[in-house]
Amino acid sequence: MNVIAEFTIIPVGVGESISPYVAECLKIVRTSGLRHELTATCTIVEGELDEVMRTILECHRKVRSMSPRVVTSIRIDDREGESDAIERKVSSVEEKAR
Amino acid sequence: MNVIAEFTIIPVGVGESISPYVAECLKIVRTSGLRHELTATCTIVEGELDEVMRTILECHRKVRSMSPRVVTSIRIDDREGESDAIERKVSSVEEKAR
Amino acid sequence: MNVIAEFTIIPVGVGESISPYVAECLKIVRTSGLRHELTATCTIVEGELDEVMRTILECHRKVRSMSPRVVTSIRIDDREGESDAIERKVSSVEEKAR
Amino acid sequence: MNVIAEFTIIPVGVGESISPYVAECLKIVRTSGLRHELTATCTIVEGELDEVMRTILECHRKVRSMSPRVVTSIRIDDREGESDAIERKVSSVEEKAR
Repeated sequence: MNVIAEFTIIPVGVGESISPYVAECLKIVRTSGLRHELTATCTIVEGELDEVMRTILECHRKVRSMSPRVVTSIRIDDREGESDAIERKVSSVEEKAR
Repeated sequence: MNVIAEFTIIPVGVGESISPYVAECLKIVRTSGLRHELTATCTIVEGELDEVMRTILECHRKVRSMSPRVVTSIRIDDREGESDAIERKVSSVEEKAR
Repeated sequence: MNVIAEFTIIPVGVGESISPYVAECLKIVRTSGLRHELTATCTIVEGELDEVMRTILECHRKVRSMSPRVVTSIRIDDREGESDAIERKVSSVEEKAR
Repeated sequence: MNVIAEFTIIPVGVGESISPYVAECLKIVRTSGLRHELTATCTIVEGELDEVMRTILECHRKVRSMSPRVVTSIRIDDREGESDAIERKVSSVEEKAR
């Protein structure tokens, strides 16, 4: 059973550029093998709940090791019988919005 | 001066499928003329702060008119001198994560 | 018709302490006359949707004037026939959790 | 090393009242022994990161067992040398906003 989750990690107290931290997270997500997508405002991951959360917390700890304060936002969408959600969700909306 | 914002609108009390509501929002966002991107977990819009918020609230009100309760999450990223953020942010991270 | 909304404003690129910025927002919220509550992770406001959003955006702009980058998270809970939600919601849950 | 986190769990597809689900979560949080606070928009917990996340995920799973779809939002504030944050953060802001 898969969930789809998005997360955003903001390092506080280290300068206004966030992309170097997001890049570190992207490396961790790629290594995890989870299906994922990087967007302009968040990283989206899809997989089994515990594995998804383990990966997000690894990203959180990595950024925290580079910064004195970190604010991490996570939103988990957990739906019965869901799979391949990253692609399917977008196309399902686009069909309806024609 | 542009901001980039993501939003997610969840209708509560009307069934577990959300995509018909997201489709209504996508139509509103397209009509607004704002640069935007639909993802599996949120809609991203870019533009002047007041216009971005006006568009998101129009989506909120539309979904609220279809549902007895709505929970809308918005995250605004507002940075000095930012523009064309939707594409540039992703490529900036991908370069650093090589 | 009232909504209840929580918001958190994170200044990026100006040091790890956030409380001076939250204090500026609290002054704005108090001046607005909206019912509100300050918590350890967010500020909660209750009132008519447009007035709530106007107040939150005023806080956002104030913090943005003090910082080169700001990330503002907002969650709006908009329910038919809702009022006095700040107190009532908590007591409604506490009764059920006895 | 403590973090402070807020979470909100929205059951989708089961009616517009959320308080019975929040009550189940409050019972889990109380049993965890973590310092916590229930607010009108979220539940705040404070403690060691892994324990905080374990407790939030237990709440998520409980609500998911009662509902076909659940959207859970979590925000973690993780700061060097932080403790007793739930009370101290509010009083620190209130002093500055006098």
